[in-house]
Amino acid sequence: MKVAAAQIRPFFAEPQKNRQLLSRYCKKAGQQEIDLLVFPELCVSGYNFTSKKQAEVLAEPIPGGPTTQLWMRLAEQYNMVIIGGLAESKQSSGIYNSAAIVGPNGFIGCYRKIHLFAREKEWFLPGQHPPSVWKLPSVSLGVLVCFDWAFPEVSRILMLEGCEILCLPANLVLPYAQRVMIARSLENRFFTVLANRIGSEGKLTFTGRSQITNTQGDILIKGAKNRTGLFSAVINPAKAQNKFLTNTNHIIQDRRVDLYQRLLHE
Amino acid sequence: MKVAAAQIRPFFAEPQKNRQLLSRYCKKAGQQEIDLLVFPELCVSGYNFTSKKQAEVLAEPIPGGPTTQLWMRLAEQYNMVIIGGLAESKQSSGIYNSAAIVGPNGFIGCYRKIHLFAREKEWFLPGQHPPSVWKLPSVSLGVLVCFDWAFPEVSRILMLEGCEILCLPANLVLPYAQRVMIARSLENRFFTVLANRIGSEGKLTFTGRSQITNTQGDILIKGAKNRTGLFSAVINPAKAQNKFLTNTNHIIQDRRVDLYQRLLHE
Repeated sequence: MKVAAAQIRPFFAEPQKNRQLLSRYCKKAGQQEIDLLVFPELCVSGYNFTSKKQAEVLAEPIPGGPTTQLWMRLAEQYNMVIIGGLAESKQSSGIYNSAAIVGPNGFIGCYRKIHLFAREKEWFLPGQHPPSVWKLPSVSLGVLVCFDWAFPEVSRILMLEGCEILCLPANLVLPYAQRVMIARSLENRFFTVLANRIGSEGKLTFTGRSQITNTQGDILIKGAKNRTGLFSAVINPAKAQNKFLTNTNHIIQDRRVDLYQRLLHE
Repeated sequence: MKVAAAQIRPFFAEPQKNRQLLSRYCKKAGQQEIDLLVFPELCVSGYNFTSKKQAEVLAEPIPGGPTTQLWMRLAEQYNMVIIGGLAESKQSSGIYNSAAIVGPNGFIGCYRKIHLFAREKEWFLPGQHPPSVWKLPSVSLGVLVCFDWAFPEVSRILMLEGCEILCLPANLVLPYAQRVMIARSLENRFFTVLANRIGSEGKLTFTGRSQITNTQGDILIKGAKNRTGLFSAVINPAKAQNKFLTNTNHIIQDRRVDLYQRLLHE
């Protein structure tokens, strides 16, 4: 299976231009026979909103909005799974920092970012559901968004639910997530695909270095700090099903849930 | 505050010789004005037992046994906290893979390893209590032992209980824990002191590279792969009390315990 992170530089508040950009990357990925393509967080709206109103105007429904519909067409055309971050509008008030997951057979699901970073708390509602694993015929996928990296709990939940590849659309400004993805892969024995963006918006500079990591925490490929590109690796996701670290150490069976209650107290 | 990992090469099944070795390291640490000294796992018995009987013979009570008593004298003499791994015997049947914590004013506590690695399951009983934080006047300490590194849950519990420095006596044969300690430090914003041993016992080779990591996941000092030594760093443990990653992101307050219930199911 060939997986890729699309490290792009979106245009702020120019959704049509960005959808053209996404289409070009999907075409390129199709030519490279990519099976799973991950775009960064908020890759159609841009990130650094100046008001809640602005964020709301740039949000779109999932799956009914233009980007998810476009991805569904491209996913079918190129026979790939596409995951990417979008500002998601609902009929009721409030928008989410979400990721859409689509495949060759249509819409698969939507994840709403649980742990909002910095001013995102002003624009977005936090997700109200634990992360899900989408069990496709070829692979079981989990999705988190950006700052969720800092909370080992949500990656762990995905592992317990059978995730083979954790996909992380991101707009990172800190240099931490890449190092933590090594541990997330190691401790959960799944693959991780971190798709970050580059470029600047106002005072924020995004730090690139998209990264694909295997179940032993080895970095398979890493993007540059300030160059766009499609960074891919060939992996066997079934390897993530082997939770034996030694003959007698199974990372799920060895958990001591009887001693972990403290995790659920504030 | 000056903290150190003592990267030693214990003699298998020679407790008296090992206690002499520990005493020399404590003296050296005293001369260097170390405040907190961490020894590896099972640093008096050695690791690679050939039978349960052998492990039991090499075990000793905590705090009544000779090593903890020795450490209490040395901790007073050199005015330091000493943490190190011991095979712990109890009056009732069964032994634990434990760590003793002692300070200038005497015995502080004992941690019993929860997650046993490989053949340790044949020799030891697993710990039956969650890890504790020992709140000393100068610092709040948490202790785990070796393979506990693989379970983010126990580090997280220590963070929630106020741990400023996670001390990890270890006998590592795999190359993973050092990379994961970077994430443990980052995600919990505490310091980590990983004290590993070197040398071989039978088919097992221990991998050194003891490591002290700060709250940003930066490695302050790293030991060699195959050389003994005292590896120290000066740190301000109070920095671990600052759980704000940004002005509006507090890593405890931002946790979503309402969405983490899955962590407590098998």
